[in-house]
Amino acid sequence: MRELQLIAEIERELRAGPPRHPRIARGPGDDAAVVRAGGPWAVTSVDSSVDGVHFRLGELAPHEIGHRALASALSDLGAMGARPGEAYLVVALPADFPPEDGLALVTGAAAVAERHDVALCGGDVSRSETLTLSVTVVGWADDPGRLLGRDGARPGDLVAVTGPLGGAGAGLALLEGRAEGVALEPDVRAELHRRYARPEPRLAAGAALAELGASALIDISDGIATDARHLALRSGVQIELQATSLPRDCGVDAVARALGARPEVFAATAGEDYELCVCVPAGTRAALEREWRARELGSLTWVGAVHAADASGPSLRFADVAGELSGWTH
Amino acid sequence: MRELQLIAEIERELRAGPPRHPRIARGPGDDAAVVRAGGPWAVTSVDSSVDGVHFRLGELAPHEIGHRALASALSDLGAMGARPGEAYLVVALPADFPPEDGLALVTGAAAVAERHDVALCGGDVSRSETLTLSVTVVGWADDPGRLLGRDGARPGDLVAVTGPLGGAGAGLALLEGRAEGVALEPDVRAELHRRYARPEPRLAAGAALAELGASALIDISDGIATDARHLALRSGVQIELQATSLPRDCGVDAVARALGARPEVFAATAGEDYELCVCVPAGTRAALEREWRARELGSLTWVGAVHAADASGPSLRFADVAGELSGWTH
Repeated sequence: MRELQLIAEIERELRAGPPRHPRIARGPGDDAAVVRAGGPWAVTSVDSSVDGVHFRLGELAPHEIGHRALASALSDLGAMGARPGEAYLVVALPADFPPEDGLALVTGAAAVAERHDVALCGGDVSRSETLTLSVTVVGWADDPGRLLGRDGARPGDLVAVTGPLGGAGAGLALLEGRAEGVALEPDVRAELHRRYARPEPRLAAGAALAELGASALIDISDGIATDARHLALRSGVQIELQATSLPRDCGVDAVARALGARPEVFAATAGEDYELCVCVPAGTRAALEREWRARELGSLTWVGAVHAADASGPSLRFADVAGELSGWTH
Repeated sequence: MRELQLIAEIERELRAGPPRHPRIARGPGDDAAVVRAGGPWAVTSVDSSVDGVHFRLGELAPHEIGHRALASALSDLGAMGARPGEAYLVVALPADFPPEDGLALVTGAAAVAERHDVALCGGDVSRSETLTLSVTVVGWADDPGRLLGRDGARPGDLVAVTGPLGGAGAGLALLEGRAEGVALEPDVRAELHRRYARPEPRLAAGAALAELGASALIDISDGIATDARHLALRSGVQIELQATSLPRDCGVDAVARALGARPEVFAATAGEDYELCVCVPAGTRAALEREWRARELGSLTWVGAVHAADASGPSLRFADVAGELSGWTH
């Protein structure tokens, strides 16, 4: 398969997607895609996945690389509480990259797009010595005041996380052979791999949090010890978390111990989980929990609280494992 | 300058841009940018610039690499006749890339954005072994039927090009030392370099052509011999061009001859010119020329015509240099 043929195959793949999205006036094949705006405000994020930096080619299948690149970008829309709309995919392939693997990158991303009702409606294929995927995702909102930034946390808010943590980091450690001796059931091992290789962006969770009155939201792909600190600094508050409260994927404790780490510290720092960390006014907790269960959005775990910044300025602190996490909180 | 500091500097640069665009509700620094839609239809193009493929690091200054990457992406909006809106920039830098050069990539792009009233309102910085810029540009339209695709050329249309051709290709040949012996005035040489290194996207020209009733439009960054063929194939017509009619930048003839090429063939094939090739109904020619002059949009040169496809199917042909361009037209 030559390059032009690969581009034609990819265009065909991008055009497929049953049913073709009714808002798309022009899809792949022209100078630009033309799409009816999905609301008065556009919410846009750009993200790149680079071999050797964000993933390693030998560790993931091509369809997983495509899946993860798009999921990672869509996670940013979830973290704003935006309504997902369109995605655009740039792939830059080494000259010796098998064309069928190039197509698998796109089909992996296309499957994520379809599942989340996102129209994958444009892209670009080029050469590069380094396999690189660049993803642009566009969501829409009716009112920018209802979107959730990193800067809205207020003293008195409670802090929660969606889903269990540590699973993606454990899956990566297993992939890289850093936790070889650990005994895990095959289905637990497979699920840890899935958490790393094929994460699902929390789009419905993010939209629900925006709708239900949350004050600040971020995705915790760098680990909650890093990302909750972003919330604290941008909001000008102190966030206090209990690391022992962080929910953990099945198998994480065994992998963490094999790596010589305390499980709660591993869950706070390993990263790669595309879950959300949210701050909500304390008074909205009961209504949020009720609605969360009604919408079957998985777990929602209360892990801390927001206080006024002290004299040393905005900060993140852990109430229970301060020493071990000092590198992340200062 | 460490990486986080570079990101902070880049964010500051992206935030600057006097005046900050009133449609931006959230710029760099959150999970996604939030921008008021500039019309009911979004026109989006993604494009990448990879070291060793689209440019060579030693040949261009960092600000030129940033300029060219954004200009190239914006050219796609010009080629649709869309109203430019926003741009998003992903830069992936090698570990040894000087941080001040990383900042220069962004300031080079920001200068193009500002000149064309485009809001550079988001981005991403990461590492890569291969210097890569990925650019997303978004334009807006009130009516998708007024945008110009590649598929609208009709028999009886006339074909024109904006601006002179060959200058960028000649500039590149000089940069690469392939045309060393050629005698050129310093200002001619400088202009050929500018044509390659700092092209201006034809946004006003594209918008005017959409408004004035053109039928099909494409940018000719791959050379008119390649890109007019795209128009022919997508429109299902035969396009006949006179290579000797193609306008040429000053100095192109000397460089082409030094390279052993006929100047008109060089102008048709060297590529890198971010000019436009347009098809227009013959009846609109007079009004278009009048308006073109009134808006001071530079040269507009008639170079061919559109015919019905013959029995062998849609094609591009050159009336005057058929043999030498046969590789491009079949």
